[in-house]
Amino acid sequence: MDDPEHFLFDVADGVATITIDRADRLNAFTRAMALDLTALFDRVDRDDAARAVILTGAGRAFCAGADLSPGQSSLSSAELDDVADWSDPATRDFGGLITLRIYECLKPVIVAFNGSAAGMGVTMALAADFRLASDEAKFALPFVRRGIVPESASSWFLPRIVGIAQALEWTLTGATFPAQEALRAGLVRSLHPPEEVMPSALALARQIAAQSAPVSVALTRQMLWRSLGMGHPMDAHRIESRGIYARARAADVREGVASFLEKRDPLFPNRVTEDMPSFFPWWDAHPY
Amino acid sequence: MDDPEHFLFDVADGVATITIDRADRLNAFTRAMALDLTALFDRVDRDDAARAVILTGAGRAFCAGADLSPGQSSLSSAELDDVADWSDPATRDFGGLITLRIYECLKPVIVAFNGSAAGMGVTMALAADFRLASDEAKFALPFVRRGIVPESASSWFLPRIVGIAQALEWTLTGATFPAQEALRAGLVRSLHPPEEVMPSALALARQIAAQSAPVSVALTRQMLWRSLGMGHPMDAHRIESRGIYARARAADVREGVASFLEKRDPLFPNRVTEDMPSFFPWWDAHPY
Amino acid sequence: MDDPEHFLFDVADGVATITIDRADRLNAFTRAMALDLTALFDRVDRDDAARAVILTGAGRAFCAGADLSPGQSSLSSAELDDVADWSDPATRDFGGLITLRIYECLKPVIVAFNGSAAGMGVTMALAADFRLASDEAKFALPFVRRGIVPESASSWFLPRIVGIAQALEWTLTGATFPAQEALRAGLVRSLHPPEEVMPSALALARQIAAQSAPVSVALTRQMLWRSLGMGHPMDAHRIESRGIYARARAADVREGVASFLEKRDPLFPNRVTEDMPSFFPWWDAHPY
Repeated sequence: MDDPEHFLFDVADGVATITIDRADRLNAFTRAMALDLTALFDRVDRDDAARAVILTGAGRAFCAGADLSPGQSSLSSAELDDVADWSDPATRDFGGLITLRIYECLKPVIVAFNGSAAGMGVTMALAADFRLASDEAKFALPFVRRGIVPESASSWFLPRIVGIAQALEWTLTGATFPAQEALRAGLVRSLHPPEEVMPSALALARQIAAQSAPVSVALTRQMLWRSLGMGHPMDAHRIESRGIYARARAADVREGVASFLEKRDPLFPNRVTEDMPSFFPWWDAHPY
Repeated sequence: MDDPEHFLFDVADGVATITIDRADRLNAFTRAMALDLTALFDRVDRDDAARAVILTGAGRAFCAGADLSPGQSSLSSAELDDVADWSDPATRDFGGLITLRIYECLKPVIVAFNGSAAGMGVTMALAADFRLASDEAKFALPFVRRGIVPESASSWFLPRIVGIAQALEWTLTGATFPAQEALRAGLVRSLHPPEEVMPSALALARQIAAQSAPVSVALTRQMLWRSLGMGHPMDAHRIESRGIYARARAADVREGVASFLEKRDPLFPNRVTEDMPSFFPWWDAHPY
Repeated sequence: MDDPEHFLFDVADGVATITIDRADRLNAFTRAMALDLTALFDRVDRDDAARAVILTGAGRAFCAGADLSPGQSSLSSAELDDVADWSDPATRDFGGLITLRIYECLKPVIVAFNGSAAGMGVTMALAADFRLASDEAKFALPFVRRGIVPESASSWFLPRIVGIAQALEWTLTGATFPAQEALRAGLVRSLHPPEEVMPSALALARQIAAQSAPVSVALTRQMLWRSLGMGHPMDAHRIESRGIYARARAADVREGVASFLEKRDPLFPNRVTEDMPSFFPWWDAHPY
């Protein structure tokens, strides 16, 4: 399968790597690129060899945001007074297509901010599980300074990651902030010299690939993200009880306990493509 | 329009300032003052010249809490076994009238803790977007030590701002804590020498007034606060898609992009009183 | 009443202490122990002399997690393809039975991590209001490394205590982390030398017992935890308005204000067993 324009895709040593490859435009995003990126996450989910996925950018920036060139921008397509069908991907905010796809992903998602990110360059990363950054990177959510509003479902993700007060500060001022502030606020988990960002992301991805049962990881990821929408801990308890029950009979558990007692790395037999428990998914598809 | 008793109101340089002016009682609040304060926020929302609003206190304290004098307190009005009409403002917790009004505000709200705050002096500030404090201020949420319970909808706001563990610690012990602990926990965003609190708040307010599109700010503020009640990021994506669409055709966007490319401050033409998009508000009024 | 096997129970100076007493197995938990622990919390709630409760472990560890011995584990009971009745405690995750019971508790719950904790040794503590730890303790949530999934309703509690990003990091990697990382992330509120953990927990418990009105504490605890499931601050305002009203007529308030003005410790007359307001509980029992 050919890689889509403006992306590099690779799977090696249990880790898929998606590189935004449009360095001459600081990896600015078009609607077509957003659709291509969601398709790459489909490939990741279908490939049992990909036990974690890294998203990074080519060149010195991670992503400068939406491409504002004439004919490219999400903004330029707005020609209708009333959109008849908001479920049409052509009328939906295209940053949200990305984050909603990552939210559904069955593999752990690591964003490696190789350099600076602005607008949807930041917000498309919010549904990832881990964010690492260059200690030279700068970040900005300048939507109010351009006359628009937050996108990529960031009005939902950002307060849940950095807290409502920090989310309001960044989005209402639109100010640029350094990597160190991103670290303090919890937007990124760790900072690294620029040349160490990808090696650090790979080390983290390989650790998960080597130590964690893929089916457990897929379930855990969905359990935690979706618990954010649950009003009562009983709702989580219902799913967890089924999860513990289903996994207890799986071959993975025998290997997990045996490898622990034998102090060796596990070799989990179960696969995401074949061995997800019958109760997964436990939710109805969310209507648009 | 005359200022209500116990308040000063001023709009200058794009910034509204509300000062609680009852220094001889450490700015303690009565029910009448709470209603007057909500009316001042109505004035802020109707005035396009007010692009941000600061709430502060006169004298050395920000607010000592509810006025416990005979005949003044919220507590003294409790005479009925069963209240027939809980939607009557006379029977509702009056701190909550304030925070629910601030929650609906269309302008960024900055609280300048010029000095110490206790009880509703703290909790009335929780629906603000930014909180700055004197580095000499002390704070307390002593409800359990008085035999009552948290108010001003703080049982909702406080855990969302400082986390459930910190919120439980402060409210279950009722202990007094210094400004430095408030900063570490995220209750306030920054500390300043007492004489620098208002200048710092004004600088922040003027930055927003100078740089941010008012309609974008009003939408963003509501999008972030209301996202806290959304179970799934798709709910935010629906609103954001309409927001991006609506704003993309607005004059503000042309000015936002042009001023960015020309490296100058923007002069946004759209006004909150006239140019909110047709989909606003996207929610039904919340029944009491 | 005899203490159940593997637990010590004591009430003194206003504080109940529950000690997991199975040091030869590092306090590993069986399903029977989980049921016994929930019964001990029933005793705490019925005893007005217990104004706070501490949960700790005997020996050098707090709890090594679920007992994985043959015939003991939650996992070994999984023999059915489809469970007919998920509301049967025998088929529910037994860690969740503990946290859901603590969530309902009417007294402040303090976990004293006297030593290390793994798996449900960590997650059973998440519904507590305060967590203190030995500075030598280590923690792990290694579910994915054993082929299972998070339990004890931790997929709900953990992101709400330490944030979704930290919760994902710990659960998707399964890595062991030191007490210092637990402190930074907010999993624990304070670290102490091992021999100071219980004295510190007791000091905190006695402070609450001495200063806080028991009925106010019971209401406040439930108001804050349950507010996490509320979509709009108005929902909290409704409860708070009734709470302020009900407490305003209570004898506790007169004592709370009088003791404050007289600068002495309060002696609150109201009791949890008798004086909870008529609107409590304000929610319907959550169906399994």
